[in-house]
Amino acid sequence: MDNVYIHPKAIVESKSIGKGTRIWAFTHVMKGVAIGAHCNVGEHCFLETGVVIGDNVTVKNGNELWDGVTLAEGVFVGPNVTFTNDLYPRSPRLPQAASRYNNLQWRCPTLVNEGASLGAGAIVLAGNVIGAFALVGAGALVTRDVPDYALVTGAPARVVGWVCQCGLQLRFEGATAACEGCRMEFVQNPGLVGLNHAQTVSAGVSNASQRRFE
Amino acid sequence: MDNVYIHPKAIVESKSIGKGTRIWAFTHVMKGVAIGAHCNVGEHCFLETGVVIGDNVTVKNGNELWDGVTLAEGVFVGPNVTFTNDLYPRSPRLPQAASRYNNLQWRCPTLVNEGASLGAGAIVLAGNVIGAFALVGAGALVTRDVPDYALVTGAPARVVGWVCQCGLQLRFEGATAACEGCRMEFVQNPGLVGLNHAQTVSAGVSNASQRRFE
Amino acid sequence: MDNVYIHPKAIVESKSIGKGTRIWAFTHVMKGVAIGAHCNVGEHCFLETGVVIGDNVTVKNGNELWDGVTLAEGVFVGPNVTFTNDLYPRSPRLPQAASRYNNLQWRCPTLVNEGASLGAGAIVLAGNVIGAFALVGAGALVTRDVPDYALVTGAPARVVGWVCQCGLQLRFEGATAACEGCRMEFVQNPGLVGLNHAQTVSAGVSNASQRRFE
Repeated sequence: MDNVYIHPKAIVESKSIGKGTRIWAFTHVMKGVAIGAHCNVGEHCFLETGVVIGDNVTVKNGNELWDGVTLAEGVFVGPNVTFTNDLYPRSPRLPQAASRYNNLQWRCPTLVNEGASLGAGAIVLAGNVIGAFALVGAGALVTRDVPDYALVTGAPARVVGWVCQCGLQLRFEGATAACEGCRMEFVQNPGLVGLNHAQTVSAGVSNASQRRFE
Repeated sequence: MDNVYIHPKAIVESKSIGKGTRIWAFTHVMKGVAIGAHCNVGEHCFLETGVVIGDNVTVKNGNELWDGVTLAEGVFVGPNVTFTNDLYPRSPRLPQAASRYNNLQWRCPTLVNEGASLGAGAIVLAGNVIGAFALVGAGALVTRDVPDYALVTGAPARVVGWVCQCGLQLRFEGATAACEGCRMEFVQNPGLVGLNHAQTVSAGVSNASQRRFE
Repeated sequence: MDNVYIHPKAIVESKSIGKGTRIWAFTHVMKGVAIGAHCNVGEHCFLETGVVIGDNVTVKNGNELWDGVTLAEGVFVGPNVTFTNDLYPRSPRLPQAASRYNNLQWRCPTLVNEGASLGAGAIVLAGNVIGAFALVGAGALVTRDVPDYALVTGAPARVVGWVCQCGLQLRFEGATAACEGCRMEFVQNPGLVGLNHAQTVSAGVSNASQRRFE
């Protein structure tokens, strides 16, 4: 693997790591994990076989990515985020539960879309999709899908605002907003009753240049 | 120790580990820890002297089990669960608090009973008992005892339902329920005003074949 | 460095560690970190260049201290506490956010004052000050400054009581309290409407011998 930095105290068994990616101490990347280019995977992480990570992703320290977790390009995973892949876990070695673990039907996936950020200590229940460029607040408990560009906080996490691709919070005037930092423009999707209700739609806000109106 | 797998990057100082148990990378098991047979202890864990673990237990990654923590057989500890053993901690090196740490009176135990599951990122305050086959939701903060078979969520954690030994949530019709998966039958204990109030009793639900009526 | 204990499985690159300090397995202390005397840094920790720690501090396992975090003398950091140093994080490798990470203006500091305790699994948003001898409850989410001697719990964390330097909760009679353990005396600051409102002042309670009346 060209130009991949692996700290001497890391364990990396995957052969599929893109150029420019760095993997730090006390982190274990199992075989079969696919990591894109120019990523940074911090210390004390565990990436299980089956994980897929795009380019330009940052995984801070203390993260365990289980089989079923996919991180699209440009995602940020803050420190000590917790993913899951089982919605009602039991010890597979408990006789009363063992039959459920005879195959992989119990496994439930998680998808984090392009450019999204998961704040420090957030917890993501399996089976949910984090929208593109969404920002999950520190300590939030994600129990349902998060719309694109949404800022969600709390336990369970709810939409409390919207953020730009660059990360800054958006201030809407009517149905439109221009980022105060990078000037990217956004429109609220038609049919949206209000921001407080936006969590019920798949995407409440779109980049104006895309006009995706999902 | 027969048939114990210890990853070459683990530190295992205990001599009391049951057959078939596996201990993974970057995990430290101190001397004096007792672990049963057929357990799986994930990566980045720390098991302190004084910890006792039964057979068939699963400890996922990123768990620290402190002196005073006991896990009965078949328990599941999800990723990044946090245990405690001090109810009002100070640095023992702080002069104003040092006298309290001259002996072990400050130490407060935690017991997780048979077959219970602690969800990802849950926090358990010391001095509490998690009931048999209970399911503590992801991110829940356990501040009081959890009844047998209870599903608890939130911070502080409260009873929001009941689960079978196999893990599936129970649907009561009147005072009885049969698991939709494994058909195990349950009865609500007499004297129970309602499920919403069940957190005030030591055990709100019993396996019908046991009829324990604690 | 005299009388410093470094576990053979730790990585310690700093040359500035005080006497009597101990650093345990699978912990990484980067160069430039300053740690005082008689500290204890547990396992699976990461201390980034720029961190400053006073004397007599206890850092339990699973803690990551980022550039910008300062712990004054006698602080206790419980297990799996999460610090942050970026208020609206994006992957620095995401093109739309990269310009913000060209310098260190994004970095936001955190100060934990003398003798304070951060409970297990607490999360501290960057830019806040934890007051001297404050006690942050397990799992609390600190989103604003915490007054000296305050007990805060919840997400977001709010003042629910006051604690002595030794850690015991104070019971006020009128505007004064004497610790039931160590007998240290405290006064409420003038101008305080009530304890429920105390979180709006920088320090609601003072050690009576100091009478600081901040």
